[in-house]
Amino acid sequence: MENFTAYNPTTLHFGRNVLNQLGLTINRYGKKVLLVYGKGSIKQNGLYDVIKKQLDAIGAEVYEYSGIKSNPIVEDVDAAAAIGRENSVDVVLAVGGGSVIDSAKIISIAIPVEAPAWGFFERKMMPRTAVPLIAVLTLAATGTEMNQFAVLSNLETENKNGYGSPLIYPKHSFLDPQLTTTVPKDYTAYGVADLIAHCLEAYFGKGEDATLSDRFVFSIISEALEYGPALMEDLSNYELRAKIMFAATMALNGMTMFGRASGEWGVHSIGHILSLLYDIPHGASLTIVYPAWLRLHREKLHHRISFLGKNLFGTEDVDTTINRLEGFFRMLDCPVRISDTGAENVNPDEIYRVMVLNKVATFVHKLTEDDYRKIINMML
Amino acid sequence: MENFTAYNPTTLHFGRNVLNQLGLTINRYGKKVLLVYGKGSIKQNGLYDVIKKQLDAIGAEVYEYSGIKSNPIVEDVDAAAAIGRENSVDVVLAVGGGSVIDSAKIISIAIPVEAPAWGFFERKMMPRTAVPLIAVLTLAATGTEMNQFAVLSNLETENKNGYGSPLIYPKHSFLDPQLTTTVPKDYTAYGVADLIAHCLEAYFGKGEDATLSDRFVFSIISEALEYGPALMEDLSNYELRAKIMFAATMALNGMTMFGRASGEWGVHSIGHILSLLYDIPHGASLTIVYPAWLRLHREKLHHRISFLGKNLFGTEDVDTTINRLEGFFRMLDCPVRISDTGAENVNPDEIYRVMVLNKVATFVHKLTEDDYRKIINMML
Repeated sequence: MENFTAYNPTTLHFGRNVLNQLGLTINRYGKKVLLVYGKGSIKQNGLYDVIKKQLDAIGAEVYEYSGIKSNPIVEDVDAAAAIGRENSVDVVLAVGGGSVIDSAKIISIAIPVEAPAWGFFERKMMPRTAVPLIAVLTLAATGTEMNQFAVLSNLETENKNGYGSPLIYPKHSFLDPQLTTTVPKDYTAYGVADLIAHCLEAYFGKGEDATLSDRFVFSIISEALEYGPALMEDLSNYELRAKIMFAATMALNGMTMFGRASGEWGVHSIGHILSLLYDIPHGASLTIVYPAWLRLHREKLHHRISFLGKNLFGTEDVDTTINRLEGFFRMLDCPVRISDTGAENVNPDEIYRVMVLNKVATFVHKLTEDDYRKIINMML
Repeated sequence: MENFTAYNPTTLHFGRNVLNQLGLTINRYGKKVLLVYGKGSIKQNGLYDVIKKQLDAIGAEVYEYSGIKSNPIVEDVDAAAAIGRENSVDVVLAVGGGSVIDSAKIISIAIPVEAPAWGFFERKMMPRTAVPLIAVLTLAATGTEMNQFAVLSNLETENKNGYGSPLIYPKHSFLDPQLTTTVPKDYTAYGVADLIAHCLEAYFGKGEDATLSDRFVFSIISEALEYGPALMEDLSNYELRAKIMFAATMALNGMTMFGRASGEWGVHSIGHILSLLYDIPHGASLTIVYPAWLRLHREKLHHRISFLGKNLFGTEDVDTTINRLEGFFRMLDCPVRISDTGAENVNPDEIYRVMVLNKVATFVHKLTEDDYRKIINMML
């Protein structure tokens, strides 16, 4: 087992009507709140009013930044941070899915500094402090509600990068599965795919004898395999929503990484390129990349893929395992090839160029530029 | 799934030579350190010198309290807290197993108050603050290194009670499996039994449709079933020690309780009585109580015991499942009856009297006084 450090200070409030405690929780940090959200769906579904009622009850002074995009961009972060800075907010309140919370994480460390936030991603500056962040999650998928990571795009430089710091753990995250019952079928499926992908990035990382963490991986993926398809047929089912929401949080809160030296993250790295080029939703990009990535590595990772198959699908055959996983993604109506997405003007050379430009990072199983070409061909 | 709150701020440093970072970690909180340990085995095995070197390197001013008993008592806690209070210590450093760390947790909240610490257990007072606690674990068993619980005995009142508060999470816990390689065979086995029992107390709690937490339970117990016996034959094996140490921490750090409203804790409650009366080590008391408790509840908990058997032993038969668990404890050379312990003058009426006196608490599956008699008979 590899040495590891476990630390996760986020308080998770999970279940029906947990938002009842939102106002009082915010009040512990202050009354000046920067409310960050997306394109306004929370106004249509009534969540905005619920949040405002909680804020009004504590007499909060609220500043808003809305319009965070589903592939979030650093330009929005800078604009929101400026509002927070001008008004010396005490709390950043993020209401939304992974895009909003990821943006809010960077906003929370950008408020105290006067420089563009992309500097964090370029390692040109380090955050020293953060405005406390409280999150209300509306989409089960990325796990950002209980971890120290954020992913943003920079349209100008054509980059989509991840950033991690202990300062960006949310102080509190509120997860009421009722808030996810209106998520449409496609994004529900992408969330299921995303949580599986997160587990696999850990599983294929450095630390193969972390046997208990492997069991955690199988546990979490098994929930997705068992309840994901049922949820597709019954989108408003609270219990099924709760199971997937809980699994998605556990998939990337650190527990699958205990006893490992690093995750793999090659699939995410490539997926980010597809999202950047063709505006493919994050989860959908992963269901395209994973089968290809596994086929690329079928020899080298034979024993790991086989062990995965044994524990998830009852088969030790590598190709059957990959096909079963791909078949599961198909069953969820997720794309497994770029051509499934309807993306136009797909150009393998362009994908290759942007992969090289982004120095597609794999922490463990290195990819050569020849591998880039191979995996692109398998994804088309 | 039941609503739940997840919060665990402890930083766990796990692996070979993690104590190299102990001094620097302490230094973040201050230089006046109350070092708490047991009966001096750390002086014999060299750990004391390692700790002192770390403390010397940061120029720490060290006060010591040693002699914590293996069934820790509140009298020691009060004496140690007095030393901490007189010297205004900045940090409590606990070096030992569950007894030492549990004691140190209560010491950390007793230092700031002028009253006897048993008042916390009697709910006569609430802690408002705690001296930061840093733990170095030398025994894989109780999980106290990453949770908010402590159990102490009060010899005068004949009570052994648990106490919980978010204030008593250790700030940092250092777990180097190398420190456990000298733990003798019997206590190693008790630790394995203890971690299994912790998982089962969660599993038999309130929240049977917490399917992912059930999977975590099976994952953790499976590690114990798979690697526990191998460890008995190879006590100095680092990897096996690491697996059991890691599993013991996960067994009671909260993750098996996500989606449940409460644990059961009936077996622990009865086990504490056996420890109190006959000085039976904690883990050994649990291997006596569990088979009896399961047999007492075999009808009522038929479906849960059967589901446990299916996932751990590949059988859905309830009696086979109980026998397999009891057989596993026997294989570890743990007692499964009070008579196996060599305890003298065992008196069923006395056990009954002290169970009634302690109002043996079961959070979910209530025991009548008639049940007390039945379970005592099964344990003799």
